[in-house]
Amino acid sequence: MHRQCSRLLAILLLTAIPTVVFGQEAEFASSPGIASDHVAYDLVRDLTTAFGPRPAGSAAEAAAAKWGSEKMKALGFQSVTIEHFPLLRWSPGETRVELLGNVAQRLVATPLGGLVAGPPVEAPVVLFESYDTFLKSDPADVHGRIVAILEPVRRATDGNGYIALAPARTRGPGEALAKGAVGFVIRSLGTHEDNVANSGASVTLPSPFPAFALSPAAADQIKRAAALGPVNMRLESMAAWAGVGTSQNVVGTIPGSDPNAAPIIIGAHIDSWEQGTGAIDDGFGIAAVTTAATRILRSGKTPRHTIHLVWFGAEEVSQPGALRDFVGARAFTERHQAQVKRALVAAESDWGGGRVTRVTLPPTMSDDLVDRVRQNLHPLGIPVDVGNPGPGVAEIGVLAAAGAPLLRLHQDATGLFDVHHTPNDVLSRVDPASLEQNVTVWEQVISAVADVH
Amino acid sequence: MHRQCSRLLAILLLTAIPTVVFGQEAEFASSPGIASDHVAYDLVRDLTTAFGPRPAGSAAEAAAAKWGSEKMKALGFQSVTIEHFPLLRWSPGETRVELLGNVAQRLVATPLGGLVAGPPVEAPVVLFESYDTFLKSDPADVHGRIVAILEPVRRATDGNGYIALAPARTRGPGEALAKGAVGFVIRSLGTHEDNVANSGASVTLPSPFPAFALSPAAADQIKRAAALGPVNMRLESMAAWAGVGTSQNVVGTIPGSDPNAAPIIIGAHIDSWEQGTGAIDDGFGIAAVTTAATRILRSGKTPRHTIHLVWFGAEEVSQPGALRDFVGARAFTERHQAQVKRALVAAESDWGGGRVTRVTLPPTMSDDLVDRVRQNLHPLGIPVDVGNPGPGVAEIGVLAAAGAPLLRLHQDATGLFDVHHTPNDVLSRVDPASLEQNVTVWEQVISAVADVH
Repeated sequence: MHRQCSRLLAILLLTAIPTVVFGQEAEFASSPGIASDHVAYDLVRDLTTAFGPRPAGSAAEAAAAKWGSEKMKALGFQSVTIEHFPLLRWSPGETRVELLGNVAQRLVATPLGGLVAGPPVEAPVVLFESYDTFLKSDPADVHGRIVAILEPVRRATDGNGYIALAPARTRGPGEALAKGAVGFVIRSLGTHEDNVANSGASVTLPSPFPAFALSPAAADQIKRAAALGPVNMRLESMAAWAGVGTSQNVVGTIPGSDPNAAPIIIGAHIDSWEQGTGAIDDGFGIAAVTTAATRILRSGKTPRHTIHLVWFGAEEVSQPGALRDFVGARAFTERHQAQVKRALVAAESDWGGGRVTRVTLPPTMSDDLVDRVRQNLHPLGIPVDVGNPGPGVAEIGVLAAAGAPLLRLHQDATGLFDVHHTPNDVLSRVDPASLEQNVTVWEQVISAVADVH
Repeated sequence: MHRQCSRLLAILLLTAIPTVVFGQEAEFASSPGIASDHVAYDLVRDLTTAFGPRPAGSAAEAAAAKWGSEKMKALGFQSVTIEHFPLLRWSPGETRVELLGNVAQRLVATPLGGLVAGPPVEAPVVLFESYDTFLKSDPADVHGRIVAILEPVRRATDGNGYIALAPARTRGPGEALAKGAVGFVIRSLGTHEDNVANSGASVTLPSPFPAFALSPAAADQIKRAAALGPVNMRLESMAAWAGVGTSQNVVGTIPGSDPNAAPIIIGAHIDSWEQGTGAIDDGFGIAAVTTAATRILRSGKTPRHTIHLVWFGAEEVSQPGALRDFVGARAFTERHQAQVKRALVAAESDWGGGRVTRVTLPPTMSDDLVDRVRQNLHPLGIPVDVGNPGPGVAEIGVLAAAGAPLLRLHQDATGLFDVHHTPNDVLSRVDPASLEQNVTVWEQVISAVADVH
């Protein structure tokens, strides 16, 4: 608690602290306040600088939430609350993944989230060039071996290459275990060629099973090693559940003028993977939706519909049993069941730091409302369609399952999977111009939908 | 020994092993043999694939040397020998570098080579925006603190930004210790913005002193954290000397027709840092010089001057006392003192994977010889000058100190420090077209200098 308070104090004092060492720091300290265009960038900068990596259930995530609640109050949101919920914390621990024998060498790898490694495993490796080939494989060829799925992620403007291959990471370990495998490695679900490995959650398993994402460079290395002879690997990891912990959602509200009008729920998530500082995933989203709502707050106008802003906790962590994933969104939905069910729309920003290319409104939306959104977005050159939000929906999918119609701001995801879930998801990867474009589109969409006038 | 032999067997059997899983592997296995243009790429591919990271004095470095000696023999070099020498092995161990207090978070860092960390240290940090500012600082401001030098490396076509800042890494820790500091961190000597830290050697110190390179992202984070208040860090590392070990140079010869003609010595180094697989530093160099010499061997012509090809061991490791650095080159020079002293020229390829832009010949070279080199390089558009080889010379500098005139093939180093000494120094970063250009220039230069006819 003390640590959270002093963190908070430190960051609130940001502009008051004289900085003499760096010319750049002076600029940093004097960066324009919240009323300026810099509010969004300042949010993602401060979130990632002060709290660093924010794993689900960590002290850093809790401190960031506390800071977020103070920030929301300072920005003028009402009824700001921190809503705690329990979760099982997961820790990646230390990792050691090696090729053995004639090509003995250590490889860059990271354990898959939500899985427990158990004792070290040494075994022959069976390689699959695609997830599909693995699915069709004979269990006799997999039994007693380490499965290696080396399919690269296709770079796509909308990120569909990641979507297509995500089941290989989420379900692949369980499928390998069911076929009798003793371990599982998969080429990182990234479009980069770096020697860093992408974190990512898997569906939890009833027994320990060592499963890792390999850096693309390591996956290439295994492919080439296979040309030199049979490949054997050793998998060692301290990945484990770290006991019951607490995460939290932060909720702030802009009250609508019509208490009977259906509410609007917009959000993003505070937590991040242990690697990087979650600047793109999802500090960018936090900054975009919060700043857009803040501009509505400060416009001097009033929305007819109430707007709820949610900073979700614990988006990146798998949970055993029925909870499964998106535990923050599940806690929110359970607590606010009636609001979610009668929501006009729910929307999230959780698809990277690219520009908004298109907006999809739910079929439940009236023609008048669709027209109003189109009118607001026409000057920005953003097309609007009506229909299914498409794949890649994260925490907000839980709200949809509980009855909330989804609104989606599609973003260019061409470069997202170069940094997503890697150590390189840091502030330098945030494009301030793209962030500003996102804020503007969010502001226009929400202003139209919430009937701000 | 058994492991080395089986490694060797595996890689020599490369083309004999059927590969059925991957289409790409089939191409890999059937890649053209040593007489084709692919010889250089195959060398760097096989070296980095079969042996992975090759730290000085490691089993992987020894196995790579053994493979190299067999490779040289197979290519037609004569008097191929492995020349062992002792060295102190250094191990980076595990690293944990953290910001403490209000901005508590783990940072990406790697220990500086040749230094021993001692027990964990917690202390306030004093930040310097430049190495020069640190050098001018009052010891009273540094005493009892952790020094952080956050100066970025300037991107330069010839890599001079790295050269300029290298003393901050090699000598900075000792200077900080002398000023009473309790630890030392420096922004990675890289031009990238990734969240990976660059390895690199420092001058050894008489006492334990924790010293690390921070990822550029971590260095940025510290700068921003300083705007939030005083920065405290914790430095923990298992970096240590791992006892006396053995490294080795591999030497092969193309005998000249005139035994009285001064010999030519060309080389590159086999060892690499623990991060990455040393594809650019210095697998590229190994491939370039070896392939160029091989083409001369296979040209059907004979050089008048004897050509010695050296694969140096242990280029990347610091040593205590008088040995200091470039221990492989020192062992070679000691063993072949007379040859080095009477050498016509010595030359290395150890400045990355960029194209050759220019060649500098030593002032000791006759005008006739200079003209011959110019004639050979004119069709390739490579200018030739006469003079000092310039900064950035590595192992070959030891030979120069013993009397060998240096010849230099300058390379474009614009992108070198994006991957140099990082996990990203892997095969995918090798540009085959640039490698081929290097081979061609080396072949033409050496053919001219060695008087191949």
